[in-house]
Amino acid sequence: MKEALLYEGKAKQVYEAKNKPGQLVLSYKNDATAFNGEKKEVFSGKGRLNNEIAARIFPFLHEKGIDTHFIERLNETEQLVHQTEIIPIEVVVRNLATGSITKRLGIEEKTSFNPPLIELFYKDDALDDPLINDEHALFLSNVTPSELGEIKAQAMEINKSLSALFETIAITLVDFKLEFGRKANGCLVLADEISPDTCRLWDVNTQEKLDKDVFRQGTGDLIEVYEEILQRLQDVK
Amino acid sequence: MKEALLYEGKAKQVYEAKNKPGQLVLSYKNDATAFNGEKKEVFSGKGRLNNEIAARIFPFLHEKGIDTHFIERLNETEQLVHQTEIIPIEVVVRNLATGSITKRLGIEEKTSFNPPLIELFYKDDALDDPLINDEHALFLSNVTPSELGEIKAQAMEINKSLSALFETIAITLVDFKLEFGRKANGCLVLADEISPDTCRLWDVNTQEKLDKDVFRQGTGDLIEVYEEILQRLQDVK
Ligand SMILES: Nc1ncnc2c1ncn2[C@@H]1O[C@H](COP(=O)(O)OP(=O)(O)O)[C@@H](O)[C@H]1O
Ligand SMILES: Nc1ncnc2c1ncn2[C@@H]1O[C@H](COP(=O)(O)OP(=O)(O)O)[C@@H](O)[C@H]1O
Ligand SMILES: [Mg+2]
Ligand SMILES: [Mg+2]
Repeated sequence: MKEALLYEGKAKQVYEAKNKPGQLVLSYKNDATAFNGEKKEVFSGKGRLNNEIAARIFPFLHEKGIDTHFIERLNETEQLVHQTEIIPIEVVVRNLATGSITKRLGIEEKTSFNPPLIELFYKDDALDDPLINDEHALFLSNVTPSELGEIKAQAMEINKSLSALFETIAITLVDFKLEFGRKANGCLVLADEISPDTCRLWDVNTQEKLDKDVFRQGTGDLIEVYEEILQRLQDVK
Repeated sequence: MKEALLYEGKAKQVYEAKNKPGQLVLSYKNDATAFNGEKKEVFSGKGRLNNEIAARIFPFLHEKGIDTHFIERLNETEQLVHQTEIIPIEVVVRNLATGSITKRLGIEEKTSFNPPLIELFYKDDALDDPLINDEHALFLSNVTPSELGEIKAQAMEINKSLSALFETIAITLVDFKLEFGRKANGCLVLADEISPDTCRLWDVNTQEKLDKDVFRQGTGDLIEVYEEILQRLQDVK
């Protein structure tokens, strides 16, 4: 199914798909990292859980009219996607204030953003993924003003759809990170992953954190809470 | 000429103007501060120099059609201005990369920005004036989207006019910081100061720094270079 390893990130390996030009195999790893790779641990089963979770979320978004790189789930830890030229900008959408933004801007924990707040970060590990503004984004990447507008509009749409999805399983989508890429035909699509690694997910009733914060903060069992997310998603229909 | 001290910042005291409701007396101090007040020194004559420099720059901008708070120079260290409700956002315009942005975003020193790059910072000493994006600005202040657009357009216009002014006196306007305020009638105007405290000014021929960087970096005599700026501005006609 796969050929050469093209590159490897902190959470996934990226392979060329065999006999499918323009397609990639994303192989989800068991590594968990935080604080730009400073904290690191291996969790047996994590790759499977994130792959299964993403393989449910991408088709859901597709049904809602969002274009994504996702083609199909291949096996427990791998999925087939369209190859893209990744825009080196992480797009964060926040519904409630928590984490870095509370300290950075002095905003009280759990303040709700209405409209949801969009932040861009320059995807550059050596610079520690700094916050950037639209002007920086246009200078630092080859994204055009209209693409940037489209990316933000897409992020808002994705937030609406995902928030609704998670609400049906008693989870608040607090915030999340997206990456977009350009397909060979030039079209922008949602790429990378959507998983408890890239979302903050709080149980509506208990406020329990069901995401990577349990690892970042050392407050819970990562596999247990990711398993909980997958199970609740499996119950949807 | 002046009544109650309303407030005092790092560089200026702000007084009510006597018998002139809606007007303020800005009194320029001799204090120089850097790194959010961490480095501090008093330079006899600095208040006069910045007041005289600003009292030349604001009328020049007025002639170019820019609305500002400036009414008139009162004496060596004071000027009369319209009282405004200051928008707590520092607007930075950069023509060449230097200072914080080079490290923050890994941009090479002296890279030129075309178009000039605009950055917004949240005016909050306790938070160390963090960089913000447009979405943050709308959340953190009462500025409206159209006002924010106007502020940026004004900043670009001011950059054009000021760059041309400084060019005539063989100085490159590298970057500068602006503050805007709302007058009683609701109109946005350029407020605060424009001086070697708030601009980076490089001699076109020698590349010598003629601004507060000589104090920040301890590489020159602040009074001497501010005096140089004032003298060159006095030669303009
Ligand atoms: N459809 C795609 N086309 C090309 N690259 C992709 C695609 N989806 C994700 N990637 C990239 O795969 C790489 C590996 O992912 P990951 O391990 O999450 O990396 P990181 O360490 O940057 O978080 C990342 O650079 C990501 O941007
Ligand atoms: N026209 C104006 N109306 C009201 N306040 C003003 C006006 N112009 C400048 N100010 C404010 O005067 C204060 C004193 O200036 P300064 O000493 O430079 O302060 P800072 O320490 O914040 O740099 C600042 O808060 C500035 O925003
Ligand atoms: Mg990643
Ligand atoms: Mg000031």
